[in-house]
Amino acid sequence: MDFVKKHIVKPGESVNLKSVRTEPDGPFEGKEEAREYVEETIQKLRALQYRLYVEGKQSLLIVLQAPDAAGKDGLIRKTLGRMNPQGVRSYPFKVPTPIEQAHDFLWRVHQCTPAAGQISIFNRSHYEDVLVVRVEDLVPKRVWSKRYEIINQFESLLAERGTRILKFYLHISPKEQLERFKERLDYPEKHWKLNVGDYEARDRWPKYLEAYEDVFKKCSTKDAPWFIIPADKKWYRDAAVASIVHETLQEMDPQLPTVQVDLDEIRRLYERELAEMDND
Amino acid sequence: MDFVKKHIVKPGESVNLKSVRTEPDGPFEGKEEAREYVEETIQKLRALQYRLYVEGKQSLLIVLQAPDAAGKDGLIRKTLGRMNPQGVRSYPFKVPTPIEQAHDFLWRVHQCTPAAGQISIFNRSHYEDVLVVRVEDLVPKRVWSKRYEIINQFESLLAERGTRILKFYLHISPKEQLERFKERLDYPEKHWKLNVGDYEARDRWPKYLEAYEDVFKKCSTKDAPWFIIPADKKWYRDAAVASIVHETLQEMDPQLPTVQVDLDEIRRLYERELAEMDND
Repeated sequence: MDFVKKHIVKPGESVNLKSVRTEPDGPFEGKEEAREYVEETIQKLRALQYRLYVEGKQSLLIVLQAPDAAGKDGLIRKTLGRMNPQGVRSYPFKVPTPIEQAHDFLWRVHQCTPAAGQISIFNRSHYEDVLVVRVEDLVPKRVWSKRYEIINQFESLLAERGTRILKFYLHISPKEQLERFKERLDYPEKHWKLNVGDYEARDRWPKYLEAYEDVFKKCSTKDAPWFIIPADKKWYRDAAVASIVHETLQEMDPQLPTVQVDLDEIRRLYERELAEMDND
Repeated sequence: MDFVKKHIVKPGESVNLKSVRTEPDGPFEGKEEAREYVEETIQKLRALQYRLYVEGKQSLLIVLQAPDAAGKDGLIRKTLGRMNPQGVRSYPFKVPTPIEQAHDFLWRVHQCTPAAGQISIFNRSHYEDVLVVRVEDLVPKRVWSKRYEIINQFESLLAERGTRILKFYLHISPKEQLERFKERLDYPEKHWKLNVGDYEARDRWPKYLEAYEDVFKKCSTKDAPWFIIPADKKWYRDAAVASIVHETLQEMDPQLPTVQVDLDEIRRLYERELAEMDND
């Protein structure tokens, strides 16, 4: 099941998002099989994450971008968030605060990049500064058009220091999005999410696709590739992302430090003392 | 099962740690029953955490202190860490870095207190500054002895802003600790944790107990109580902590915001558009 090969955007590749499937195309028979695969993969992920943490040399940055309701939160809650929280942090980037606005666009994300041994998950990211900012015309073109190269330089800086970067676009169809908006009406716990703005943003869907296509063409690099994940089916989305993260951690191959102590000596020491305790 | 009542240190109460059990005393028949209870409690916790996050008004700070091998990491990995990572962050406080050393002792922890809607877990905390610092004689008594009151003031500042604070001491016996050190010898994945310093620190165990007793007497307050959790059995430790966190979140009773939109109007809008899509 080579999800990496299937979904990666090669450096410089032009993508026409409308022609990319939002529905899965194999390899699972269906939901159940995919869910089992996710469970197994998470266990393997956790074991590798432990090694990454103990090794303390490399780190991993996972960037999630998607239209509303495509499932960034669900993916974190049900899959990526099941790693050990001592080694993984999730950062939601929302409308910039006044302090964030008063800095360059990379300032707030730079503070959240993972330290050695750690994993950061960005729920939205610096890419909003060439997506929403472009489509909603928040800064002039001469400003945002320079940002692709700035982003590439920033990401190579991270890569240079030992950070692997995986960037996922969760690709859903407009119809699936609308179905999910509608579902929220049936769950009182989700009513706070209802927002007429979400619905209206749908008019700008084609402009967003165009902005994403530019991102993929300009910013999918060897060090920091983009992946386009068919996300109409949640079980496929979770399986594909878990698999790509797992494969990446395997490649990073974190090593446990070699132990300098004399295990036998320590064992004798412990056994002697335990015996004494029993005699007390 | 009133774990709060059973394990709380009342304000001003003197505790003699040697006379406090490290083994559980009810209410579970055994491990299996406790594990089931933990699973159920985590599901309830997650539902309440969602409300806390959406409400965005109150927050929760969980402080974990314990001797080595008492299970702070295990408790986070297997229980507390199973909340949604978008609303919970775990902060391990280690030997202070040079930058941290160059500030007052609350500087580094203050940055990690939970924002409204969030939960922070402190793996070790500002209490190290009246524990390790006192026992290992790292600063003079005239300095550390003033810190209890400073800590109480700091914690009321947080409480005033809507943060509930729960402080857990995981209480294990010296023998159980030694058994766990010994177990690490059997797991190559844990060998990096082996450290002769851990073993030697055992000589200072009575001094640590004394320092903890002072902490409990001076810093268990109504706003920020200490709990002493029998931790020789991991399943009891997990169940008791999960239960106390759950009960606290229930008391905090976070509310979903009231929805201002007209649900029926939105439903009609969505249904019309979905019908149009089907006709395309």
